Amino acid sequence: MGELSIIEAIKTRADRYRSGAVALGIGDDCAILRPPTGHEMLVTTDFSLEGRHFTRDRHSPQSIGHRALTRGLSDLAAMGAKPLAAFLSLALPPGVARKKVWLPAFLDGLLTLAAEHKVPLAGGDTSKAPDDHILIDIVLLGSAPRATALRRSGAHPGDALYVTGALGGAAGELERVLAAKRPLRRTATSPHLFPEPRLAVGAALRSRKLASACIDLSDGLSTDLAHLCTASNVSAELNLARLPLGGTLEQALHGGEDYELLFTSSTKLPLKIAGVPVTRIGTITRKRAVQVTQISADGERSPLIAHGWEHLR
Amino acid sequence: MGELSIIEAIKTRADRYRSGAVALGIGDDCAILRPPTGHEMLVTTDFSLEGRHFTRDRHSPQSIGHRALTRGLSDLAAMGAKPLAAFLSLALPPGVARKKVWLPAFLDGLLTLAAEHKVPLAGGDTSKAPDDHILIDIVLLGSAPRATALRRSGAHPGDALYVTGALGGAAGELERVLAAKRPLRRTATSPHLFPEPRLAVGAALRSRKLASACIDLSDGLSTDLAHLCTASNVSAELNLARLPLGGTLEQALHGGEDYELLFTSSTKLPLKIAGVPVTRIGTITRKRAVQVTQISADGERSPLIAHGWEHLR
Repeated sequence: MGELSIIEAIKTRADRYRSGAVALGIGDDCAILRPPTGHEMLVTTDFSLEGRHFTRDRHSPQSIGHRALTRGLSDLAAMGAKPLAAFLSLALPPGVARKKVWLPAFLDGLLTLAAEHKVPLAGGDTSKAPDDHILIDIVLLGSAPRATALRRSGAHPGDALYVTGALGGAAGELERVLAAKRPLRRTATSPHLFPEPRLAVGAALRSRKLASACIDLSDGLSTDLAHLCTASNVSAELNLARLPLGGTLEQALHGGEDYELLFTSSTKLPLKIAGVPVTRIGTITRKRAVQVTQISADGERSPLIAHGWEHLR
Repeated sequence: MGELSIIEAIKTRADRYRSGAVALGIGDDCAILRPPTGHEMLVTTDFSLEGRHFTRDRHSPQSIGHRALTRGLSDLAAMGAKPLAAFLSLALPPGVARKKVWLPAFLDGLLTLAAEHKVPLAGGDTSKAPDDHILIDIVLLGSAPRATALRRSGAHPGDALYVTGALGGAAGELERVLAAKRPLRRTATSPHLFPEPRLAVGAALRSRKLASACIDLSDGLSTDLAHLCTASNVSAELNLARLPLGGTLEQALHGGEDYELLFTSSTKLPLKIAGVPVTRIGTITRKRAVQVTQISADGERSPLIAHGWEHLR
């Protein structure tokens, strides 16, 4: 499977889903996009590298494709943007290209999720990998009406702190994935293998002006809450008893890749937004020496240290 | 040098050049761009992978940064687009990150060229590399007034075939680079180490409606002319005696990475466009069994076989 046949395989499958926002897709020097009038463009790029973000023996090609796209879609969700197009840079080791089964299954995982969210694959790049690791870089472009995108930097003292869905489930499933002898099958909810980017929630928060600040939980609650506090120049109190647990408390605080949204709001919110449960887990305060204070079930207060999440430590 | 200090090093240097087109740069979940009203967005992504596109011992970090950005800028040039912003995904092996000298020099090469063309670095991603190869993916976003971008597909029988600058110089310098014991110094013209993307020519061809089709010469004349003919559903005749040689005839025909523009036109052109020499090298014909016919100095005709260029074969 040479570079041209790899491009052909991508182009054929990408053509299954088209969009009016893409005036010119795969096949010229650039793709051409037409963002809606009055909209700004949002752009994010995310590596998915074998050995750092996934393994070849425990992650199915479908899961690798799904997760790679989720990383970018979740960044768009965090800002309330509507996805316009995805771009895939893909370098395959010769052994993977030769086998001819990995690529179609990978594209199936990526493009099934893309079609769910109506995102055409509009371009990218291919290369032979320099060694035996699969290299993926995903670029997502989205749009939002001018000056409406959610940011990390808008949280104010007194705002309530919310999270979507449940926390720690991805780290819990990752443990099972790494302990298993072969790739695990997809189950009804597979927060690590097939995470759901919260695009509908992000769009609702933005269009209904419900959030003052927002970030997606890719590095883990302790780390991403610190990012939000730094960007907003505030501190936060976190009520541990309120955390919606999808794994252990440790996994909920420090496990990464839940791809839920963490956001702040000055208004009382419904129990669900776009069909997804939202839970109040704390409060924003004025900036203090301690950036994040965790409050245990019996009222004990202590600083929460951000454990920078490393994919596949 | 951990991931955070790598991001900090990039952000600090990127802040040297800002642009009104970037409403929000490095530091949130996405960057926010404001394309000019009535413009379409052009998007291209290009890998630069150690061992495939460059070597660490023969290419200086400055050259690696310059060349990585040139790949994307040249794609924008081929469609006549104005660059709006660049995004850098960068994975460094631990040994390269530890040394602390490679990254600033790499950024210097990339950002010096970016500033020349007024392109802010607006975002990207970083990761540890999974092995001992430096991995780079560059994304360029540009814009052009709606429905004016040059494409590969507009060439018509009877159009003249033109090229900018000189051909084969990059392949010639690459040979000297690989034969040298250490990185070669930059000279007055260094077509391989420091190629010049032809943005001003591309913009002039587009705005003055001088070209019917255009492609950049990244894979070599024989390969890229075949791409243009396929996209336009035409054939071409190439006058070998007219080729502006920067290396041997073989290098001019099949050497890659000259990053000149190959374009077709139905009007007589000046000798220079935007200060760059343009040379008529052939003619577009109706589609024939032979896609590209080369015509030697003494009038002998034969098929030109496209030699797909492989970077660092």
